[in-house]
Amino acid sequence: MNPSQKTPLKIGMIGLGTVGQGTYKLIQRLPQLEVVAVAVQNLEKERGIDDLDTSLLTLDAHAVAVHPDIDILIEVAGGVEGTKELLEAAIQAGKHVVTANKALIAQHGTELFALAKKHDVSLLFEAAVAGGVPIVTPLKMGLASNQIEEIAGILNGTTNYILTRMMQDGWTYEDALDKAKALGYAEADPSSDVEGFDAAYKIAILAGLATGHWVNVKDMTVEGITPITPREVDYAKQFGYTIRLVALARLKNERPDVRVHPMLVPNEHPLSSVHNEYNAIWVRGDAVGDAMFSGKGAGELPTASSVMGDVLAIVADLEAGNAKTAVGMVLDLKEPAVLQPIGETTNRYYIRMTTADEPGVLAALGTAFGNAGVSLESFLQLPNPQNNPHTSLMVVTHIAQESSVQEALSAIRSLASTQAVDCVLRVL
Amino acid sequence: MNPSQKTPLKIGMIGLGTVGQGTYKLIQRLPQLEVVAVAVQNLEKERGIDDLDTSLLTLDAHAVAVHPDIDILIEVAGGVEGTKELLEAAIQAGKHVVTANKALIAQHGTELFALAKKHDVSLLFEAAVAGGVPIVTPLKMGLASNQIEEIAGILNGTTNYILTRMMQDGWTYEDALDKAKALGYAEADPSSDVEGFDAAYKIAILAGLATGHWVNVKDMTVEGITPITPREVDYAKQFGYTIRLVALARLKNERPDVRVHPMLVPNEHPLSSVHNEYNAIWVRGDAVGDAMFSGKGAGELPTASSVMGDVLAIVADLEAGNAKTAVGMVLDLKEPAVLQPIGETTNRYYIRMTTADEPGVLAALGTAFGNAGVSLESFLQLPNPQNNPHTSLMVVTHIAQESSVQEALSAIRSLASTQAVDCVLRVL
Repeated sequence: MNPSQKTPLKIGMIGLGTVGQGTYKLIQRLPQLEVVAVAVQNLEKERGIDDLDTSLLTLDAHAVAVHPDIDILIEVAGGVEGTKELLEAAIQAGKHVVTANKALIAQHGTELFALAKKHDVSLLFEAAVAGGVPIVTPLKMGLASNQIEEIAGILNGTTNYILTRMMQDGWTYEDALDKAKALGYAEADPSSDVEGFDAAYKIAILAGLATGHWVNVKDMTVEGITPITPREVDYAKQFGYTIRLVALARLKNERPDVRVHPMLVPNEHPLSSVHNEYNAIWVRGDAVGDAMFSGKGAGELPTASSVMGDVLAIVADLEAGNAKTAVGMVLDLKEPAVLQPIGETTNRYYIRMTTADEPGVLAALGTAFGNAGVSLESFLQLPNPQNNPHTSLMVVTHIAQESSVQEALSAIRSLASTQAVDCVLRVL
Repeated sequence: MNPSQKTPLKIGMIGLGTVGQGTYKLIQRLPQLEVVAVAVQNLEKERGIDDLDTSLLTLDAHAVAVHPDIDILIEVAGGVEGTKELLEAAIQAGKHVVTANKALIAQHGTELFALAKKHDVSLLFEAAVAGGVPIVTPLKMGLASNQIEEIAGILNGTTNYILTRMMQDGWTYEDALDKAKALGYAEADPSSDVEGFDAAYKIAILAGLATGHWVNVKDMTVEGITPITPREVDYAKQFGYTIRLVALARLKNERPDVRVHPMLVPNEHPLSSVHNEYNAIWVRGDAVGDAMFSGKGAGELPTASSVMGDVLAIVADLEAGNAKTAVGMVLDLKEPAVLQPIGETTNRYYIRMTTADEPGVLAALGTAFGNAGVSLESFLQLPNPQNNPHTSLMVVTHIAQESSVQEALSAIRSLASTQAVDCVLRVL
């Protein structure tokens, strides 16, 4: 499978962090590729590469992007505005580009694709979506004849690791996050992961691939996992669910419903068995039916594996002497999608409340749900410890519109018997 | 994502059975494609297509293969020798070819790829491996930088449906097979499915993709599911396993270990949760780690989805004016792989025996296993119904070499206390 040719193709790299080091190692295996320049932020830093040629390192990223010798630029540095300018410079200089940068592709993909098209170069980004899991190419090519109706993904390894530890071992959020940092899954500032934005960029890219319309993350509902407590985890188990941060794209309507938030995933659903740092993408197409892709969503070599898949696709094309690459076919994203407002979406809901333990409470709650047109699928009241004047109630609703559920909750909050609506989670 | 161009590309089809009808329907969605001729075996047969243009049908498959107007030939008829000649004629006439024919690619892929390379046309076969599941392209491209160490697949929907019904509903093999036929999963003559050859062709193709060496199905150990009885199914459940027909390729050794046989799959393994007509491919690569791909392995539209993925890749390439297609990169399979003989492979084993219910039997069995160097992981003797002089014993071994296990079994069979070695299954 490894293409062979006499003159090695020349690679420039921007970034030599975790993914960059993995990429460098994989390139070293391939005699047909040669790294000629690597832009870093610190020339002195120790890198986990045995035979790193430090003479290739430079602080000047722009010089690497437009380096006269390079055929392909690999960008694994992250960052948005400054990095965008670097990629633009590379594309304008006729370089093919491979990037793992989800924020950049989600925010500026449309402009970058148009520029790549103009300059007849490839711009590939398999590693930007789910680490090592090949999903971009299957969506662009293998499933291209399908109308993609729905995508549900676990797209962030950090939060999935945290939720797995909370579910399986009863850890607190804080303990699980600390362990994720120690293992290198979570960054020093984990906010993009735990607040859902990392997953949001990824599902925006997938929804764009599936619909041909750019999806703006700013228009999406994005909720993170910080409100999840061990108590919710316990109750979810009792109801037969696993809690996961789900990135969802429901695409059958004219206005796509694209969002990221924690959900209760039924134990029968294939996404419920995706544990630890694994990612998975469940896709429903009108021809293929249900398909699922899973694997490691982060880490040095898994993500580098996806970067190198893109690089080798470009290599194959260059070796074939092709004018343009089919897989590198720059995306032609049409005008931004107008998303369905969250209030109009329909879901099942899990709701936990604290109420007075006294006659009439159940009737009042039933009236509040009923008036809003929300019907209940299951209901659980836990036995009340002695002398506690309040009790915990859990309900799971049938499918209901979000705005109706909010209407019911607002009525419930105004009841004298309600101490608190503690937690509301949507159900997959 | 749908490429658009003024003149539709012309398609010829050989075969209009289940997959052919699905393919025809998907082509009708795409204005840039036009079916101009379809070879069938019976012009009068009713087809499940509403607006079929029957004037396109012909009995002359060769005329379709070399039809002067067509750009792409889709072969979904099956068959080996005669079909090979048709594809050769098409390739020699400069047609790009997409086929779903696993037996043909597994047996004659090397020659056909060489011919396609010579004539600079694409020969794609995504639909030949796992119905709707995109796996060929990810293996060829996305995971191309990996050394693929192991592939374990559920690659036959018919047998997986039968085993699922036996496991979940306690059906007999015969009842489950009848139902599979009624649902259209099994053919009138199901021998290629139930005896494992359909899965064997598919894993041979995948092992060839992963290693670059052609794998001859005739060199593989291929065992089907006909020996599986409801009794084994019950015992497997008690031990915490699911029975699945597993297609295995262990590729770390110099001599690949490639085979198909039923296995006990531990309930924790992701393949154990692949039910009914679903297929799945679990892959371990040295960079990506574990990844899994699953979806519907058969059926009109899922398989047609894969056929059309290949067709659209060719379309994208033709529209780009490319000399050669990167994805259609004809495989360059090197000399045939010399496979590891089954006796040298290592596995865990489940063994069920019927023995005399008398003192000394356990010691004799222990000696037989011990002398052969096979150690046991678990052991179960079921309570013996009154007045039955024989008892059922089940053991699961630790990892052992197949030849050692056969040596132990041969000693056990020669014991006076042994009535029968009823079942031997390898454990994943």
